[in-house]
Amino acid sequence: MASLPHSRDAALALDQIDPLAGKRRLFCLPEGCCYLVGHSLGPPPLSASERLREAQADWQRDLVRSWNSAGWIDLAERAGAQIAPLIGVDTEEVIVTDSVSVNLFKLAAAALPLAARRVILVEEDEFPTDQYIAEEMARQTGAEFQRLAAGGGFGALSRGGVLIRSAVNYRSAEVARIDDFEAEAARHGAIIVWDLSHATGVLDVELKASGARLAAGCTYKYLNGGPGAPAFIYAARELAGRLASPLPGWMGHAAPFAFTPDYAPRAGAARFASGTPPILSLATLSGALETFANVSASALATKARALGNLVISRADSMGLDVMSPRDPSRRGGHVSLRIKEGYPVVQALAACGVMADFRAPDTVRFGLSPLFLSHADVRGAMDALEHILQSGSWDKPEFHARAKVT
Amino acid sequence: MASLPHSRDAALALDQIDPLAGKRRLFCLPEGCCYLVGHSLGPPPLSASERLREAQADWQRDLVRSWNSAGWIDLAERAGAQIAPLIGVDTEEVIVTDSVSVNLFKLAAAALPLAARRVILVEEDEFPTDQYIAEEMARQTGAEFQRLAAGGGFGALSRGGVLIRSAVNYRSAEVARIDDFEAEAARHGAIIVWDLSHATGVLDVELKASGARLAAGCTYKYLNGGPGAPAFIYAARELAGRLASPLPGWMGHAAPFAFTPDYAPRAGAARFASGTPPILSLATLSGALETFANVSASALATKARALGNLVISRADSMGLDVMSPRDPSRRGGHVSLRIKEGYPVVQALAACGVMADFRAPDTVRFGLSPLFLSHADVRGAMDALEHILQSGSWDKPEFHARAKVT
Repeated sequence: MASLPHSRDAALALDQIDPLAGKRRLFCLPEGCCYLVGHSLGPPPLSASERLREAQADWQRDLVRSWNSAGWIDLAERAGAQIAPLIGVDTEEVIVTDSVSVNLFKLAAAALPLAARRVILVEEDEFPTDQYIAEEMARQTGAEFQRLAAGGGFGALSRGGVLIRSAVNYRSAEVARIDDFEAEAARHGAIIVWDLSHATGVLDVELKASGARLAAGCTYKYLNGGPGAPAFIYAARELAGRLASPLPGWMGHAAPFAFTPDYAPRAGAARFASGTPPILSLATLSGALETFANVSASALATKARALGNLVISRADSMGLDVMSPRDPSRRGGHVSLRIKEGYPVVQALAACGVMADFRAPDTVRFGLSPLFLSHADVRGAMDALEHILQSGSWDKPEFHARAKVT
Repeated sequence: MASLPHSRDAALALDQIDPLAGKRRLFCLPEGCCYLVGHSLGPPPLSASERLREAQADWQRDLVRSWNSAGWIDLAERAGAQIAPLIGVDTEEVIVTDSVSVNLFKLAAAALPLAARRVILVEEDEFPTDQYIAEEMARQTGAEFQRLAAGGGFGALSRGGVLIRSAVNYRSAEVARIDDFEAEAARHGAIIVWDLSHATGVLDVELKASGARLAAGCTYKYLNGGPGAPAFIYAARELAGRLASPLPGWMGHAAPFAFTPDYAPRAGAARFASGTPPILSLATLSGALETFANVSASALATKARALGNLVISRADSMGLDVMSPRDPSRRGGHVSLRIKEGYPVVQALAACGVMADFRAPDTVRFGLSPLFLSHADVRGAMDALEHILQSGSWDKPEFHARAKVT
């Protein structure tokens, strides 16, 4: 524990050897704000704002011609190619399109005919949308639906169905062992659709090496793509050609401007494109992804783990209940603490300039985005938390006026 | 024909009594550009750019708090409420969400259990995406699929299925008689999902008065919401409560932040919201819709028809083949001409500052957006077309250098 950066000097020393420290200046963050909610909505990278301004200017100047002149027509593919190295897959295996909800539906419906059995599996503590989509998709297609006990996904793969599974649990940050899951799925003819929403941009996901074949993920969390930025789909090359999108919009057509009545899907993951993508949001995302150029997923994960270790060691010293795995290799990019007075504590933190989030009934989550947070930032946030808890000041309205994180 | 504005003076006189003439200054259009492609991608209204700048600033300043502080959480509903009066329905009957493709799927799948027969109907000259979506939806759900002859939709309603039908044909601009269709559908227990993509913002669609119950539509054409701006869904109040979205994402949940495993849909059309909407694109759209405040659909249609009449009368005088209905009450917001050398002619028009579009093999479309086009604009475009055709200059490269519309 001696090496943990409990002191300000120790944190600063870690920042000095942090290979990602230089990335902070690529973001636009309010003065004095320690932002620990990057797992919910990432802040704007400067390059995101720049690309948005360009897209606006293109719309104004070149109007409909911008589909070609500004490259809007293949922007979804280019953004997919920017994401690919962060999840360990090839560029043509990723497309940016629609929302995570819609993409999970597309992948599960496309996978169903290839699974050993027509059954949709989802765990009961899975992110709620994933459960809603899974259950309704089963109803629509006449497949069987099974809601499993928390943690029951692995064991249920022997049923040979389609499992929708988060790589990182949104609440606890627990990480699934993708390679073990995929090996088990392969044994039984099951297919897994991974939800990478809390993994991409913060975890060293190596999908191809782990045998993962299908995944969807969010781009407005750790990828900082902007509020509601379109999501992505990964479909492994060897599987993609056998998949039919249940939402075959014209942007997924091999010849979208031929206007033929019959559908001919594009090659690779691009077949999962559907309607016209929201270009202003998509251009912003593509700009945000420039921030990740030449950054390895491994470097992101290493730093996020170090920041998470810092949170946990301080939580331990405060005697708090840590809900997230202590083994950093089993933990995603956030750390969740169980704090009975969580809601007012998060408000008190905000009054100190520290933004964290609260999930009822008692979960406080600290998102540890590795590109823009320093060890000193996180140490300061924990100082503020300790001060609030020791002083009981979360229930003192006057605290909110004077508190400021140091 | 004497009253048609063939002359510059006559066109200017019409502009002087045009009640929408003042709207032109609310748009940002390049100098010297006569933009007749608003049926494909509308130009940016100033208010759209303004709202986009604000959303960007909100993201930067308030970060995740903007979901509440900037009202992002109900922006999709507010944008829906802005669209509602343009299609003659109530505010809670419209929600902005996803793309037209995805929305047609949602509505057709939701309507299927309520139709007299499990059959999906679509005409063979329907916009191709609508055909792709219809066919695949039938395959997914095990419903029967019937591709009808062009114009066969009305007659097929007696089969009691779900018909996906454009209110305005994307190629010819022919308008469907919505009230006749709905009366026939009611007689046979059929349900119609209207595609309003080429109707909204340019036609006096009165959905409620016409008995229409379900519709989806595009917002980046005549509504000028920006490239790929999210689409909308209309579901009539009396039907909405009986419909289950096949894509029940968390934004369509009655309590999205309760994170319950079971789905409880929101009231009204809002149940068709799905994943997190692309806020930057959505804010831009909402800004664009401000341009339509206090503009009646009837005023839009009246002017678009006058502009269309002008195009047709000039086309007649040039001996061109008019593909669109001559009866303005049967015609949408664009006029299509069949011109054998259409592609180079459109290029030659562009060299004169007149933007029109071309659809293979021989269709030239002139979009007559009533908010930013004047009669003089359209007259000038027709002058340019006449000059190009008379001189045969579309095949003379040197023309492109010297031509400028007057």
